[in-house]
Amino acid sequence: MSDLKAKFLEVYSVLKSELLHDPAFDFTDNSRQWVERMLDYNVPGGKLNRGLSVIDSYKLLKEGGELTDDEVFLACALGWCVEWLQAYFLVLDDIMDNSHTRRGQPCWFRLPKVGLIAANDGIVLRNHIPRIIKKHFKGKPYYVDLLDLFNEVEFQTACGQMIDLITTIEGEKDLAKYSIPLHHRIVQYKTAYYSFYLPVACALLMAGENLENHTDVKIILVEMGTYFQVQDDYLDCYGHPDVIGKIGTDIEDYKCSWLVVKAMELANEEQKKLLIDNYGKDDPACVAKVKEIYNAINLQGVFEEYESKSYEKLNNSIEAHPSKAVQAVLKSFLAKIYKRQK
Amino acid sequence: MSDLKAKFLEVYSVLKSELLHDPAFDFTDNSRQWVERMLDYNVPGGKLNRGLSVIDSYKLLKEGGELTDDEVFLACALGWCVEWLQAYFLVLDDIMDNSHTRRGQPCWFRLPKVGLIAANDGIVLRNHIPRIIKKHFKGKPYYVDLLDLFNEVEFQTACGQMIDLITTIEGEKDLAKYSIPLHHRIVQYKTAYYSFYLPVACALLMAGENLENHTDVKIILVEMGTYFQVQDDYLDCYGHPDVIGKIGTDIEDYKCSWLVVKAMELANEEQKKLLIDNYGKDDPACVAKVKEIYNAINLQGVFEEYESKSYEKLNNSIEAHPSKAVQAVLKSFLAKIYKRQK
Repeated sequence: MSDLKAKFLEVYSVLKSELLHDPAFDFTDNSRQWVERMLDYNVPGGKLNRGLSVIDSYKLLKEGGELTDDEVFLACALGWCVEWLQAYFLVLDDIMDNSHTRRGQPCWFRLPKVGLIAANDGIVLRNHIPRIIKKHFKGKPYYVDLLDLFNEVEFQTACGQMIDLITTIEGEKDLAKYSIPLHHRIVQYKTAYYSFYLPVACALLMAGENLENHTDVKIILVEMGTYFQVQDDYLDCYGHPDVIGKIGTDIEDYKCSWLVVKAMELANEEQKKLLIDNYGKDDPACVAKVKEIYNAINLQGVFEEYESKSYEKLNNSIEAHPSKAVQAVLKSFLAKIYKRQK
Repeated sequence: MSDLKAKFLEVYSVLKSELLHDPAFDFTDNSRQWVERMLDYNVPGGKLNRGLSVIDSYKLLKEGGELTDDEVFLACALGWCVEWLQAYFLVLDDIMDNSHTRRGQPCWFRLPKVGLIAANDGIVLRNHIPRIIKKHFKGKPYYVDLLDLFNEVEFQTACGQMIDLITTIEGEKDLAKYSIPLHHRIVQYKTAYYSFYLPVACALLMAGENLENHTDVKIILVEMGTYFQVQDDYLDCYGHPDVIGKIGTDIEDYKCSWLVVKAMELANEEQKKLLIDNYGKDDPACVAKVKEIYNAINLQGVFEEYESKSYEKLNNSIEAHPSKAVQAVLKSFLAKIYKRQK
């Protein structure tokens, strides 16, 4: 494990302990144990990329200057706020999607004795974020900006989730509704803001920047987030299950995946009809049929072209940015995801 | 309808329209219609007491001074934030409790095409609060205090809901766990903070007060909220269904009601055993048995004594408060709930 990750996990323990002794609530032993188990199960078990990128970004923004212990702690705390936000979304999304597993273990709500209490646990996770921010940032000049930032990004994510959900309402399955603008809108709101923009925005605030002067950074990161999600959609079908850690089910689940949107765009009338008839069915023969059409129209090639064009475009946007430090942050993000296999 | 209520509902329309055109999200027609229907179904349909009390309280704090149109609008906006918070809790609670009706109509998640999308709708409702606050209070000296207040109260409510839920986990039904301190803790966190303290705290902030100087007001309002919830528990069993607008099911639902807690305290060994055997069963004969014991130990008389003692104690606390204006606010709350029948 890297030193940074070890430090990051150390800060998790500190934050958890503070939350378990928050004076705003009079814990019983039972409720304290419940929250501890819930946090350990849902918060630290992912790849932690979003959280760690707050610290990476802040380091690059400080240009060469070493971080003080205090700065490292604060950057880690904000990184964990992003991870807490992610945990909150995942706990609730799994309930809404009726999912079975997450990060290689049963979804939280599937555990005995948890069930729909998980919905409230999601809410508790969400409420921990302002508790962490208040404890460690109240009094800083950017305190209110942090609150506004998390509020705005959470709002956008909830709206993204909403359009994703209402697009896939059972009984209204209609592939013709899936289009590149819809896909882009869902991805932008549901994933890109909180996964890409939020960590960098946290680092910018810590560095004393005014986010209103950085709308260009937001635009670039949202585009990068879109590219990331297209990769995700691609890997769901073409990635190796052992490498991506799961068996993709986007086709069965009638997901508004970039692949099916592109396929509907490129297919001839006969192929379109086959896609409509076979997409979103939990039957291996139907899934195979869909994949057959994907191959017939060379979706892998289409993706590879999308990937290199996106990379080029993002790179150009980054190099046009006036600040070398910001360029470094954005390039570091891009390097982490370009041609990723998982 | 009172003028105030008409004005309050007018402000609802303004806030709704602003939210449906929030520039932080790129609405489609479908998603805008969805949010509008969801808001109209869940936000304005209750008694609106919590929201209206922000305006009442602010008027009393201004002592005689008439409110400007702007002040009325802002007090209404904060009143609606409290109502939005309530709607968010109710939408999610109904999912968690698997409820059927709310305010005389099916619960939101029970509607065709809604289902578990309701969980995300709850989140959207929650996210509207900081959007409203930002739009109308950003730049006010108490802006950050409003954000902190709503964050803290939401956190406390979620914690209260948590202890309520983990106390009633299926398969661990054990009436002996139900006690007055537990009941008080659940009520304090789950209901009193947001229903009683929050509206007054909003009014105090608008009046330029520092909430840290008003911990006594918080204590009194939380006690009043507890008294209110005890009345609720009482009315669930002894109120007239036509008056309270529902048929109580606390006994069937194994609720940690003040009645069963008091009953377990006052019952003899034989009665305790009967309570344990019959509480929490969806069988009219069991419910009748429980009510029989309630009557045998004269729970109605015990409640009446509790009611008059609580009233006296609250009144004394209020009269000890140094500010006449604050006294007026608290007395107005108390008058509204004392000996209520619904």
